Amino acid sequence: MSLLTHPVLPAPTTTAIVGMVGGGQLARMTHQAAIALDIDLRVMTPRSDAPAVRAGASHHAGRPDDLAALFDLAQTTQVVTFDHELVPNAHVERLVAEGHAVRPGPSALRLAQDKSWARAVLEGAGYPVPAFLDVAPGDTDAIASFGRDHGWPVVVKAPRGGYDGRGVALASSPDDLGPLDLSPPGGRVLLEERVPIATELAVLVARRPDGHVVHYPVVETVQRDGICHELVMPARVPEAVALRAVEIAVSIANGIDVTGIMALELFLTTDGSLVVNELATRPHNSGHATIDATATSQFENHLRAVLDLPLGATDLLVPACATVNVLGGDRPADLAEGLAHALREPGVRVHLYGKAHAPGRKLGHVTALAADPDAALASARSAARALGAR
Amino acid sequence: MSLLTHPVLPAPTTTAIVGMVGGGQLARMTHQAAIALDIDLRVMTPRSDAPAVRAGASHHAGRPDDLAALFDLAQTTQVVTFDHELVPNAHVERLVAEGHAVRPGPSALRLAQDKSWARAVLEGAGYPVPAFLDVAPGDTDAIASFGRDHGWPVVVKAPRGGYDGRGVALASSPDDLGPLDLSPPGGRVLLEERVPIATELAVLVARRPDGHVVHYPVVETVQRDGICHELVMPARVPEAVALRAVEIAVSIANGIDVTGIMALELFLTTDGSLVVNELATRPHNSGHATIDATATSQFENHLRAVLDLPLGATDLLVPACATVNVLGGDRPADLAEGLAHALREPGVRVHLYGKAHAPGRKLGHVTALAADPDAALASARSAARALGAR
Repeated sequence: MSLLTHPVLPAPTTTAIVGMVGGGQLARMTHQAAIALDIDLRVMTPRSDAPAVRAGASHHAGRPDDLAALFDLAQTTQVVTFDHELVPNAHVERLVAEGHAVRPGPSALRLAQDKSWARAVLEGAGYPVPAFLDVAPGDTDAIASFGRDHGWPVVVKAPRGGYDGRGVALASSPDDLGPLDLSPPGGRVLLEERVPIATELAVLVARRPDGHVVHYPVVETVQRDGICHELVMPARVPEAVALRAVEIAVSIANGIDVTGIMALELFLTTDGSLVVNELATRPHNSGHATIDATATSQFENHLRAVLDLPLGATDLLVPACATVNVLGGDRPADLAEGLAHALREPGVRVHLYGKAHAPGRKLGHVTALAADPDAALASARSAARALGAR
Repeated sequence: MSLLTHPVLPAPTTTAIVGMVGGGQLARMTHQAAIALDIDLRVMTPRSDAPAVRAGASHHAGRPDDLAALFDLAQTTQVVTFDHELVPNAHVERLVAEGHAVRPGPSALRLAQDKSWARAVLEGAGYPVPAFLDVAPGDTDAIASFGRDHGWPVVVKAPRGGYDGRGVALASSPDDLGPLDLSPPGGRVLLEERVPIATELAVLVARRPDGHVVHYPVVETVQRDGICHELVMPARVPEAVALRAVEIAVSIANGIDVTGIMALELFLTTDGSLVVNELATRPHNSGHATIDATATSQFENHLRAVLDLPLGATDLLVPACATVNVLGGDRPADLAEGLAHALREPGVRVHLYGKAHAPGRKLGHVTALAADPDAALASARSAARALGAR
């Protein structure tokens, strides 16, 4: 009845409808960016309490391996993109074969899905990568030979399906490939030499279908237990190193013809050289500081890229910033109380993902804006601790 | 069935539940800010297609004058706040009398609701205000006398219910109070001297219940047809003027004991003095540039203030920025196409409100970040035009 008091209006429309496979924190922050551009973001996840759904993104129920649900998503949206890469590539190829826009496309996506494949492609294209061997876990002769050539321990990775440190271990002999949960059983493993790391770096680029690329300032990352734990932007490395890292990232983005955000992780070795580690073809944890500290967040630029819209400025707007992830501690923290403490430092920006607590789970992140990296890190760490970060 | 593949988890919780009366663009942008702090924003509006509801804020159906709906909102949230002031003050007093947290409270809210009351209170407290007279529209003797004393034309305002230029007119004689739609009929009018304006300014402050206040950089505003049309931050006025404007705003915020954002509009007159125009006790159009150009947006600081959380930094992160409102042109524009043009300038930040087109309606705004105000204004105007702004 109350509606009668309003004039009859044409129905509001959106500027675009974007499908995103996955409804986690990356989709949640993409939804925040989508609101400003009046983009309807439809996230495909089986969970009605997924972080993005709780934030108000449209919910398209379905598991990422459900081909029918993927087709439904593609048919009701202009473009399909991803908040994770755990989608069968054959499904993605089917969507493309039927004429649907999927960005990134299957060949770029495969490099983020299969670490052995990525190593082989990047080495073949001449990029610096660690020595590696794709091998059956039972092939102890080949493993022993690799260990002799490159020194023990060697890094062992599940080529597919690993994330946040799951699927990575150190092996100190051919018979001990570490506590790696190899899935599927009988699959292969990726052995890598253990590179002497001085600093881990990440470069985010956004790329349109026509090849136009922008890049963000190089980020220094600190891993803990294989999970990206802290970031400093800009990275505290010589200018020449940062330029070279950007050069490599842009070249790879062009080479693999990615659309959307691509995050390239690199090692700066103790002898000053750069080695490519892994890549992701979606918004990435290493780019969270872009929300608060650059002109256009990685999430907005991902949307703009996959919709073939002009890309936004990526300038850092502050002298320095640092991000610390809030990983769940042993017991649930009172986030409401923690927030009151975390926000005491004026330059702190809190991002909570609306997830239930679990030890080690990424529950949020904190970015601090400051005059220098040390001050930013100190603020961000203090705020993350206040939120119960382990 | 697919949910069976996930472990049973404790239900996610929010850090706070905030009720907001109104579901327009201010509520929409408040929801964007609420997501990061994992605040559940419940917007009370009769419209299921209101801008905030379309962005995913929780919908609490109800008109702003529906006392039962207001009580429901108060009972299911920690604090009630507002995206407009068109709520009967008696209703607000009832909520407070029943022990509900309503921020701002009724006495501060009244100053935003009733322009004659605000003039009287601020003049009584010694602040510089234009000469004014609250009068019955038929009292031609008093009106003629006011016009003689202060010169014709005089400004005529509906003391209550006006917004965006509705309820403001110029009168050139006692018998011609202009095309003012006086509501309720038989109500009084507010006459004001026409101040010789050099520049219109606005100052936003955020204030916690304990009196802690932060202020944003002073903004220069350009009105067109009574609607705030363009903003430049920081205002191009002498430092001493900006400092004085901030001083007045902070003093008034303390004096009226406001909680949340308060926006104070002032005139800088041609003789260099400052005169208080109007105030709002909620997020305000004049603060939209805070989303993209300051460390903490007005929307986040409003939430933090009404929840009694520490306030965030308000520093301007760029040399200059400008905001241009996108008011609907005579015909609907193709916003999707407009977006592709508007985003061509890398420093442009587009905010669309998800509203149906109507001529003159605020459909969105554009903020441009730049090295100087002129460059920012040029970018923002160009982008707003691309989006079909009149």
